[in-house]
Amino acid sequence: MSYCFGIDVGGTTVKMGLFQTDGTLKDKWEIKSRTENEGEAILPDIAKAIEEKLTESGIDVSEVVGIGIGVPAPVDREGVVKDSANLGWGYKEARRELEELTGLTVKAGNDANVAALGEMWKGGGKGHRNMIMVTLGTGVGGGIIINGKELVGEHGAGGEIGHITVQWDEAESCGCGRKGCLEQYASATGIVRLANRRLARDDKDSILREQSISAKAVFDAVKQKDEVAMEIAAVFGDILGKTLANIAVLADPSVIVIGGGVSRAGEILFEYIEPPFTANAFFASKGTTFALAELENDAGMYGAAKLILEV
Amino acid sequence: MSYCFGIDVGGTTVKMGLFQTDGTLKDKWEIKSRTENEGEAILPDIAKAIEEKLTESGIDVSEVVGIGIGVPAPVDREGVVKDSANLGWGYKEARRELEELTGLTVKAGNDANVAALGEMWKGGGKGHRNMIMVTLGTGVGGGIIINGKELVGEHGAGGEIGHITVQWDEAESCGCGRKGCLEQYASATGIVRLANRRLARDDKDSILREQSISAKAVFDAVKQKDEVAMEIAAVFGDILGKTLANIAVLADPSVIVIGGGVSRAGEILFEYIEPPFTANAFFASKGTTFALAELENDAGMYGAAKLILEV
Repeated sequence: MSYCFGIDVGGTTVKMGLFQTDGTLKDKWEIKSRTENEGEAILPDIAKAIEEKLTESGIDVSEVVGIGIGVPAPVDREGVVKDSANLGWGYKEARRELEELTGLTVKAGNDANVAALGEMWKGGGKGHRNMIMVTLGTGVGGGIIINGKELVGEHGAGGEIGHITVQWDEAESCGCGRKGCLEQYASATGIVRLANRRLARDDKDSILREQSISAKAVFDAVKQKDEVAMEIAAVFGDILGKTLANIAVLADPSVIVIGGGVSRAGEILFEYIEPPFTANAFFASKGTTFALAELENDAGMYGAAKLILEV
Repeated sequence: MSYCFGIDVGGTTVKMGLFQTDGTLKDKWEIKSRTENEGEAILPDIAKAIEEKLTESGIDVSEVVGIGIGVPAPVDREGVVKDSANLGWGYKEARRELEELTGLTVKAGNDANVAALGEMWKGGGKGHRNMIMVTLGTGVGGGIIINGKELVGEHGAGGEIGHITVQWDEAESCGCGRKGCLEQYASATGIVRLANRRLARDDKDSILREQSISAKAVFDAVKQKDEVAMEIAAVFGDILGKTLANIAVLADPSVIVIGGGVSRAGEILFEYIEPPFTANAFFASKGTTFALAELENDAGMYGAAKLILEV
């Protein structure tokens, strides 16, 4: 039997997975991300955790084909990170350092791109080779898979779907410093902004007026046929569906996978996203299907394993 | 010495190139595209032309590594064309048929994607591996190169830059049947539309009022500091620059190459495209450079050769 590790590094925890190379997850666990001192302990901690796991499992290092690792930053093709605020890293040759620490082959990628790879391999995009993944969480993340590989780009910043400009006349700033990014309308916080804007516009009755606003509250209200909530969902769906139609003109995917916290609202999302997508899609994308992500927080771990298996 | 053929099939002529595998173009010539009878003669004509050229040049077929071919239609990864109005083809297994006719290995691609590959290999994008190419001709074509390979997509319709929707409130239809495509503003005919709209708005003096309007006339007038022409160029540049900034969020290129008839206006284009691009670019793309295409009508031939050499 041969094995690999899939590792998803976050700002608070590192998710670690031991996989058989046939894709079976054999074991998963977490360690803390020690980000102090410019995150200097993160990679040594990972190397130590791998060594301990091999000993514990009675697996010889010669049976391990390598390590895939996803990190919250742009990562170039050489596995170099220029800057990761979440991890405390400045310039970091992540791939090379982890190879030296472990003696194993390492491949590194951006966490959002890697999660997309995971969803293609074992989740909502299973069986597809051309996919757009959009993660609707606090922000909007994403990844584009072209012919089975994640789109990395020159600086490792490819597939940054959340920062496509969709409203050129937006007055408020996005976290990235620019204005009118998709993230400002389609993330959990973006949906709250849309809701607050709508609620402020008039006094129309809505159950949303009786509670604190969240993306979940909006879609719960949609499920109860609250008209104001349905208007908010329509604005959200119109912006996201049209933007996905534009991305599809470039990426020509066979499936679009929606993940992140907002996706827990379920299939009802598609009622709002698909019609504007289809109405605006280029002919080649008229048959593109939508699917919900399936791996939740494990997507990055699976994708990291896939990253090293595809080398 | 070993050789390959790079072939660019158009609706009226087929451009044929005989290359050494080191990239040297040894010979180029054209044959007619016989599109009658559903274009059934096109591939046999190409096979015959190749055979004759080999005989003429004293090259043995064993010295030929293969044939790359670009066609004006989406081409999937298997080299299958679903429909090409320009060639009279319906469903056509172009790669397989040409392999059977010649006994050589063939790789087929979409002409615009293949031309982008050519510009990366030997033209304006030389030395780059992540590139956006936009061809401003009668329409707007394009190709996206990711890590040295053309973005093909599920149906061979990847990188269709000209059909990104950039104006959701456009009243007139694009050739593709949708409304507000980049092509409606940034192609040669799009620039004429912008010019006519601007000229109709008031009576402001302009040398454009004394001649028939063309994209060339607009940029010639810009070079003479004609204010109305400069306003038109600014609208063109704003739309194209912002759209390229959005594409760059996804593709993370190191260079953007501008080709097609409109690009003959030269470096002055960049004065209008670059400022809106840079103002709206995601941080990773702030350093992306612009270049003019260099291979003109030979780009497709070069790219087709590269297509087979990269297999």
